[in-house]
Amino acid sequence: MSGWLSVVGLGPGAPGWLTPEAAEVLAVATDLVGYATYLDRIPPGPPGQTRHVSENRVELDRAYQALELARAGRRVAVVSSGDPGVFAMAAAVMEAVEADAALYAGLDIRISPGITAMQAAASRVGAPLGHDFCALSLSDNLKPWDLVLKRLEAAAAAGFVLALYNPVSTARPWQLGEAFDRLRRLLPGEVPVVFARAVGRTDERIGIVMLRDAKSDLADMQTVILVGTAETRLIPRPSGAAPFVYTPRKAAALK
Amino acid sequence: MSGWLSVVGLGPGAPGWLTPEAAEVLAVATDLVGYATYLDRIPPGPPGQTRHVSENRVELDRAYQALELARAGRRVAVVSSGDPGVFAMAAAVMEAVEADAALYAGLDIRISPGITAMQAAASRVGAPLGHDFCALSLSDNLKPWDLVLKRLEAAAAAGFVLALYNPVSTARPWQLGEAFDRLRRLLPGEVPVVFARAVGRTDERIGIVMLRDAKSDLADMQTVILVGTAETRLIPRPSGAAPFVYTPRKAAALK
Repeated sequence: MSGWLSVVGLGPGAPGWLTPEAAEVLAVATDLVGYATYLDRIPPGPPGQTRHVSENRVELDRAYQALELARAGRRVAVVSSGDPGVFAMAAAVMEAVEADAALYAGLDIRISPGITAMQAAASRVGAPLGHDFCALSLSDNLKPWDLVLKRLEAAAAAGFVLALYNPVSTARPWQLGEAFDRLRRLLPGEVPVVFARAVGRTDERIGIVMLRDAKSDLADMQTVILVGTAETRLIPRPSGAAPFVYTPRKAAALK
Repeated sequence: MSGWLSVVGLGPGAPGWLTPEAAEVLAVATDLVGYATYLDRIPPGPPGQTRHVSENRVELDRAYQALELARAGRRVAVVSSGDPGVFAMAAAVMEAVEADAALYAGLDIRISPGITAMQAAASRVGAPLGHDFCALSLSDNLKPWDLVLKRLEAAAAAGFVLALYNPVSTARPWQLGEAFDRLRRLLPGEVPVVFARAVGRTDERIGIVMLRDAKSDLADMQTVILVGTAETRLIPRPSGAAPFVYTPRKAAALK
């Protein structure tokens, strides 16, 4: 039997957002490797399929485990939330492949993309990513905090909409507050900010505030935050519905 | 009958990337509105479903047509390639809603996200978007070219991977060449650049070159281009397979 490894994106959680390609990989894999929270979202597989549940958060360990299984001839699905190529497992697998290329670079390795959190969040409120945008992880686990701030400020000053991943954690309680403070120096206080938590899951919660009122306690580890530009606006809706948020396709020259 | 409008993303073209949610909307809509190329990808719908084929490229006209149908009680799917929230129809629909809010803001309007071209392209080559990245349209139809260049340079200088949409057209023959020239002033010549054309369709073509060799004639209107950072690298593979492209999750402080 010839092994393979497929890094699969589950999307944010709603079954309607799991691609047929990802579902097919999950159905034919002999082994699923993933963080417990993500494996719990997948219905039982065919008889004999083995689940390798990871309780820890060390992505690189999971990548090596999956590569070893594929090398032993197993058909392995590495399970990621969202899109594995966006702040998820694809880069960790590549890191392991590069580190032991003689063992792993010849394996059959594929990636199945998925809907990522910023897309799900955007779809719930209108078209906040309507033009150019950046996706930025606020975690300083893998890069210095100064670099996070530099990227945040460069993107906001150039008029990109921002999608902020990993905005806060128990180990990073103050960083998001500082990020909002920096953004308030560059952008008008009226800029819409979307806090989108657990989109597509039963505990989904969407909040829209102005940048001047954005606070870190509106986010948790399951939140993605969309920060508009000076051109992003709200469209009020009748009968108490939440407003639409949208960023026009047109942009004027910067002053 | 109560009308609604759903802006649906088909993904880049492969059936395996069409979400179940989008497929369901297409199955229950009474009317499909879209550009001919996208409608041609959809198998025939239920009896009585009407297709409103648009030959022109004026997104706003299509948005008004769809909103009027929904207002008349039809169940309308506005069809977009990729993700409707990423350089596609969601923003055009919002623009029309804002312009005639009294007529349209109370309608039942939803968005179904889809896999967008940069995700499909990334999945084919490894993990090029492995950390922070920007999505930027190179079209100067709706914004001045100076602003495109400013965003391009700001993002590259801050260490974002770049996904370049709408890189070239017959009306915009020289812009991409200038964009590569600007990037070469900011980034090493060895930075990997991925030209991904028609990913997921029968005429898919993927090319990987170094930034110093990137030329505009490697792209057409169906191409998305991924430009790495100074940290993006190739992993050679045995037996003539294309190398993996990946951007490490870790990033050092900027000099």
